[in-house]
Amino acid sequence: MDLAGIFIGRRLANRESEGRKITAIEGVPAMGLDGLGSSAYGPEAALTILIPLGAEGLHLIRPVMAVILVLLALLYLSYRQTIEAYPSNGGSYIVAKENLGANAGLLAASALMIDYVLNVAVGISAGIGALTSAIPKLHPYTLEACLLVLAVITVVNLRGTLEAGLVFCVPTYLFVVSFGGLLLFGFVKAFITGGDVTPIVPPPPPSAATQGATIWLLLRAFASGCTAMTGVEAVSNGVSAFHEPTVKHGHRTLTGIVLILGLLLGVISYLAPVYHVGAMDQSQPEYQSVLSQLAGAIIGRGAIYFVAIGSLLAILCLSANTSFVGFPRLCRLVARDGYLPRAFAIPGRRLVYSVGILWLAGTAGLLLVLFGGITDRLIPLFAVGAFLAFTLSQLGMAFHWLRRPGNKLRLLVNGTGAAGTGAALAVILAAKFVEGAWIVVIVVPCVLILLKTIHHYYQVIDRELRDDRPVGLRGLSAPIAVIPVQRWDRLADKAVRYALMLSPDVVAVHLTKLEGPDAEEHVGRLRRQWREDVERPAESAGRSPPRLIIAPSPYRSFAGRLLKHVSEIAAHCPGRPILVVIPEVVKEHWWDYLLLGSAPVHKLRKALLRHGGPDLAVVTVPWTREGPHPEEVIEAEEPQPEEAAKPAPQPV
Amino acid sequence: MDLAGIFIGRRLANRESEGRKITAIEGVPAMGLDGLGSSAYGPEAALTILIPLGAEGLHLIRPVMAVILVLLALLYLSYRQTIEAYPSNGGSYIVAKENLGANAGLLAASALMIDYVLNVAVGISAGIGALTSAIPKLHPYTLEACLLVLAVITVVNLRGTLEAGLVFCVPTYLFVVSFGGLLLFGFVKAFITGGDVTPIVPPPPPSAATQGATIWLLLRAFASGCTAMTGVEAVSNGVSAFHEPTVKHGHRTLTGIVLILGLLLGVISYLAPVYHVGAMDQSQPEYQSVLSQLAGAIIGRGAIYFVAIGSLLAILCLSANTSFVGFPRLCRLVARDGYLPRAFAIPGRRLVYSVGILWLAGTAGLLLVLFGGITDRLIPLFAVGAFLAFTLSQLGMAFHWLRRPGNKLRLLVNGTGAAGTGAALAVILAAKFVEGAWIVVIVVPCVLILLKTIHHYYQVIDRELRDDRPVGLRGLSAPIAVIPVQRWDRLADKAVRYALMLSPDVVAVHLTKLEGPDAEEHVGRLRRQWREDVERPAESAGRSPPRLIIAPSPYRSFAGRLLKHVSEIAAHCPGRPILVVIPEVVKEHWWDYLLLGSAPVHKLRKALLRHGGPDLAVVTVPWTREGPHPEEVIEAEEPQPEEAAKPAPQPV
Repeated sequence: MDLAGIFIGRRLANRESEGRKITAIEGVPAMGLDGLGSSAYGPEAALTILIPLGAEGLHLIRPVMAVILVLLALLYLSYRQTIEAYPSNGGSYIVAKENLGANAGLLAASALMIDYVLNVAVGISAGIGALTSAIPKLHPYTLEACLLVLAVITVVNLRGTLEAGLVFCVPTYLFVVSFGGLLLFGFVKAFITGGDVTPIVPPPPPSAATQGATIWLLLRAFASGCTAMTGVEAVSNGVSAFHEPTVKHGHRTLTGIVLILGLLLGVISYLAPVYHVGAMDQSQPEYQSVLSQLAGAIIGRGAIYFVAIGSLLAILCLSANTSFVGFPRLCRLVARDGYLPRAFAIPGRRLVYSVGILWLAGTAGLLLVLFGGITDRLIPLFAVGAFLAFTLSQLGMAFHWLRRPGNKLRLLVNGTGAAGTGAALAVILAAKFVEGAWIVVIVVPCVLILLKTIHHYYQVIDRELRDDRPVGLRGLSAPIAVIPVQRWDRLADKAVRYALMLSPDVVAVHLTKLEGPDAEEHVGRLRRQWREDVERPAESAGRSPPRLIIAPSPYRSFAGRLLKHVSEIAAHCPGRPILVVIPEVVKEHWWDYLLLGSAPVHKLRKALLRHGGPDLAVVTVPWTREGPHPEEVIEAEEPQPEEAAKPAPQPV
Repeated sequence: MDLAGIFIGRRLANRESEGRKITAIEGVPAMGLDGLGSSAYGPEAALTILIPLGAEGLHLIRPVMAVILVLLALLYLSYRQTIEAYPSNGGSYIVAKENLGANAGLLAASALMIDYVLNVAVGISAGIGALTSAIPKLHPYTLEACLLVLAVITVVNLRGTLEAGLVFCVPTYLFVVSFGGLLLFGFVKAFITGGDVTPIVPPPPPSAATQGATIWLLLRAFASGCTAMTGVEAVSNGVSAFHEPTVKHGHRTLTGIVLILGLLLGVISYLAPVYHVGAMDQSQPEYQSVLSQLAGAIIGRGAIYFVAIGSLLAILCLSANTSFVGFPRLCRLVARDGYLPRAFAIPGRRLVYSVGILWLAGTAGLLLVLFGGITDRLIPLFAVGAFLAFTLSQLGMAFHWLRRPGNKLRLLVNGTGAAGTGAALAVILAAKFVEGAWIVVIVVPCVLILLKTIHHYYQVIDRELRDDRPVGLRGLSAPIAVIPVQRWDRLADKAVRYALMLSPDVVAVHLTKLEGPDAEEHVGRLRRQWREDVERPAESAGRSPPRLIIAPSPYRSFAGRLLKHVSEIAAHCPGRPILVVIPEVVKEHWWDYLLLGSAPVHKLRKALLRHGGPDLAVVTVPWTREGPHPEEVIEAEEPQPEEAAKPAPQPV
């Protein structure tokens, strides 16, 4: 089994695709890690904005989060409807394209693509950042750890979405049980005592208030908290991954993700003021995250604390997985419409869109390397793309219902959703513009233009290649065969035989002085051999004997000189096609490439195909040293399923 | 003009090679920098061994260096004779091969190759090391500086040996004039005053003696001092670079190098005890090299001091150039005999052996990167290779004269040379074995085995390919053409036309389900188009209509499936050759590769050629979007000399 087989698994047949579908059990880990992880940084981000208000400001997290929860509920209802209306694939791209036009669809796609890439880089880097602040010894290896996590997520996703769901089940449900239980415990305690609780490990006192609450500050807190909502659209992009009935499994997955996220957000923002937990300045050495303070206050620094915080770290590191489910499927849809290279639409050996996965891993890896594994500065960028896609998708759904009378309630839901996410987008853009959101405003149109340029390219080629006429059979004249010959050997022999079979007129061209001024010349011998071994036998067989042209190449150029001779021959016999017969020793091992050199033949073929004119074709006559083994290729490309490959049990 | 044109210059014609030859003026800088630079580290290395003897030991440098100078004189006489006897190319490889047999030649070649690679890495790193100890600010950029110098030397040598000689003239002659003048001044002063001189900047007092002089210590000092002699053989390897009469220019160059080196070594070892200059411990922060101490003692730290030390640094950095002249020429000779890939024997655009230059730069660069630009630990390795080559070359020359009676004096010179360098080799091996010379003892045989393995590979291929029979014209039956078809377009149209021209039996294969289980199928349309646009016209033209086979590929494999169909067709029609006609959109720009994807076609062609059996050939039918411009290729490969390209002066 080859390397790909070990890491990614055997190639799957098309018919196995049904068995690769997922249910909500795998769907929540596969698509929900981004959303779940958001529960950690959403409240933290909002509380960070509230720091200047001091202890008084803590209570303001509740109204801010309440607005966010309302928006989340709206998004939930809207996306439920979207999944129902587009049961095959209802991502923002499709919804916006079908209801608002191609440009709106591409705008949504561009925004989402950028969002997905950023999410991978920021998610992994945030997770590893939390890990290294817990274990400072790991700090020098930040970038390496980020790339390791990226590699693991990439390989797991190349194996398939099913595998990703199964592998990431453990940390996901561990997180839900441990952290959820912990928060629930704190909530019940606070509820019973009417909010009069004593933190077990008291959080550090909040810094003094330096200013009063303003609308602008609250809006900024809201904009920061909105990062908690990114990742909710992933389910609608990946409906095709679900078992039949897809709508049911899609709904369940969406419900699971939003319910867990909503509960976590609600409880956290309820408990933060109760336990007097606020955000701390990250640049201080004694920094602790909000959730770490809260967990310590509720349950102390015991085993449960460490399990909960550990599973949170795992969730953060793996939140990138949502992008790995969404991005390749989005790219596939965009590629199918001709806006991305076709390779994005071709399923790989495991029936997932490997090119999209690798491209995502590559770009995110590049970002991680460029920023040294610390991507804090990218955080402001990445809610913009998500909310732009949200808004376009909701708006598209609203138009969808507008054209279908009798769906007033649905129209209302999606319309309100569009208005809500649109307003949130405006707030986010305004609040984060200077911090970096302006970059998105520049990059999204660039990606959009790129997509349209690619589309134009394919359109032009398709137009040029379109053929509605029957094949032309007139003017089929016998071709002239041209053979570049270095010396007389069995390879040249085979090429001459082939040429004589294909054409009545065969010309061999031997270039001299290719090896410099003082290279030995063996022209005389070649001429003699040609006369005896080629011309005479051809003559006695009653054929027109192949000619041998011996021409110097004073600049040691090969492709150019041969092109020159080919054009001269073409000029002599206008209208006749030219077959250049290239004899080639087939390279079977890597050392063959080094020792036989493939560059000159490759360059020659390319130059001939590119500049030989419309009537030239290249015939490669191979010479193999070992026998053919076609079954090797077939087996490598079409492995039998393991159960079939197993030997039948031996009769005793 | 392309990038290569800007950096390396236009392609030179074979006939221009005469104008590229060099005389001793360029020969000394091109081939002598290694030898000249040795004057700095030879005495230093010997004096370092003498440190434990304290002030008393300083005087012992004179007898040690006297022996080295005698050896140098012997080498000089020997190599003069070698150049005369082998006026085309008299390197150690050729001399040993022709007189001692192929294995001795390959042993010399392996030793020299390793020596050349080490010399590049160690030379550059020593030069940059001296520079950074002069300007400590540069220390963090050691590796970058090393690679920059390597890149400069590589580019200059790719332009040609003539250019290398011209460019490196300035530092070479500046060094000879400034340092030579300085030392001469010191020598005259010491001679006049009878050795009673006062150092202007007194060198630090030598450390106290910790042991007495022993034969073993003197032998080690001699072995270390012998590093001063490496590089002397370069002239004999590069005789072909000289103008006619090559022997005269070769002799002059050799004389120039050895004379300068000998004088420098002699004067330095005479003056070191006079001015009480000894080697210092390199690990101490106040470390100064012997030459720096000596220059300061003679002339003070004035302008002349800085010019002399600056030119010395330049010489050290550029001493790698000797390898760049010798290595490619050596590899070319070895490759011409079939012991290295043929590409090493092909002259590049500037008539130098570019592959050897690039290979040398690559290996030396790798060593520099691996050792972080500090290659002190490699120094013990690198006299061994040189002295092994010296000895084999001298021994070869001795046998040369033995077979030609009447050359007793010459036999004596070369015999004594062989004995001297052989003895020196034994001393060096013994003295440096533990320090690292054992690595050479392991690596040289490995390289030797590699060379012989390559030779065996070429011999086997040549034997398999040898063809003494006339071309077989029996059994030439009409081929069957197989066309992989994706859809009906002008490209498929062109392929079908070509196939019909080449063969009476045409089969098209269309694979379905390549794009996954849920991809749309356009089989019906293709089948209709085939019927109307291909079968009908062929029938009405009275030809057997091309068949269309529609086959599913459940594993989305392309090459394997097609191979399967090809083998089935071959099994049906045994003995008939099969032409697989592949229609291909020619990629003209880098984005074409990204957007059209070249990997599948490339993989398909490779699999067909490798596993299609002996009767299969691949016809590539190109489809170009832009018109052919063969003159572009020809002009790129064969630029006219600049004088010819200049426009004629306009008549006024």
